[in-house]
Amino acid sequence: MIRTRPRGRPVAALDQNARALLLDAATDLFAHQGVAATTLAQVAHAAEVTPAMVHYYFKSRDQLLDAVVEERVWPFVELVWTPPPADADAIGVMTAMAERIIRGAEIRPWLPLLWVREVLSEGGMLRERMMQRLPFDRVMQLSTLMADGQQRGHINPDLEPRLLFITVLAMSMMPLATASIWRARPGMQDIDNTVLVRHVTALLRHGMAAPGKE
Amino acid sequence: MIRTRPRGRPVAALDQNARALLLDAATDLFAHQGVAATTLAQVAHAAEVTPAMVHYYFKSRDQLLDAVVEERVWPFVELVWTPPPADADAIGVMTAMAERIIRGAEIRPWLPLLWVREVLSEGGMLRERMMQRLPFDRVMQLSTLMADGQQRGHINPDLEPRLLFITVLAMSMMPLATASIWRARPGMQDIDNTVLVRHVTALLRHGMAAPGKE
Repeated sequence: MIRTRPRGRPVAALDQNARALLLDAATDLFAHQGVAATTLAQVAHAAEVTPAMVHYYFKSRDQLLDAVVEERVWPFVELVWTPPPADADAIGVMTAMAERIIRGAEIRPWLPLLWVREVLSEGGMLRERMMQRLPFDRVMQLSTLMADGQQRGHINPDLEPRLLFITVLAMSMMPLATASIWRARPGMQDIDNTVLVRHVTALLRHGMAAPGKE
Repeated sequence: MIRTRPRGRPVAALDQNARALLLDAATDLFAHQGVAATTLAQVAHAAEVTPAMVHYYFKSRDQLLDAVVEERVWPFVELVWTPPPADADAIGVMTAMAERIIRGAEIRPWLPLLWVREVLSEGGMLRERMMQRLPFDRVMQLSTLMADGQQRGHINPDLEPRLLFITVLAMSMMPLATASIWRARPGMQDIDNTVLVRHVTALLRHGMAAPGKE
């Protein structure tokens, strides 16, 4: 059923490969044209397998979407929320998180697109699925860590601790989601992700510190 | 043709009113369900006028979209890019811009939604229209102002001047675009736009300053 079947490879491995190819193709199509506009037939075509094979692995687009969340999007979320060292301060935690968002999205070029289209957009088809699973307790822990830092005079008192995660996510992810626009402008091509990491972490490091405490 | 026609009101004023109602309805539908999913009949229905009246004012969805950009979106862009006082420094310019984005979007609740769906999303139907008109020369002027500040030792040297506009836009706009999600979480309801302005401008003011120069 797959166009080229490597000789001597066991069928189980081939099956796993077909499933992975389908997930990759679906993730890519969902990111570029949206979940609603993507049919199972298009996914089969992009993965170069028969439509029957899509139905064999995933009964419906809903099931395929669940698998994309579980196996493609979730590893990124887990990466972003890697627990910090026990003695980490709020500034260290947030700058490390910004770097993980940018580096994690770098090897998943579909991710910022999917995030804009299906999480950020009202009615996005991943919005509910992500909301149900997002670790809001960890967002709140982070917020407490920041508030403690403010009390002890280390952290800029004008910041709102509960807004910091969304700020970091926005600063890191939006330039990636729009890179195809701004990198095409004259004089912008040389801004790579290393520059973006330096820019975002510098703004956070100094912006989060209480004045005079850097 | 309009459901209720105020007595004694001249027809010209009535027409202007119908046209404005149509533009408002279209802007709202475009923001909430997307341009592609919105028909002229839906716009007519939402504005409570006959479909014939939509066709009278706007020959096509494309023409309606042009009018939405020109008369609804563009005033916001102009507001954001209000020229700063001649003696303004980069930090003053960027914090004022962040505040104008947040306050300008506050009175245009459809704006952050439309921006996510039709500008940020790949294939968004306002992307091209906005790109052709965005004042990139002013983005570059801003970037030069920042770079000058870095040379003179006032501005954090680790920041990338060319990324600052997109950073400010992201930090200001993304919390607004997702407010319906996070404001619904326990303990988040009291975060209003005054808190958001304070948070974003505090992060910028301290984060943009060269260490020891605040």
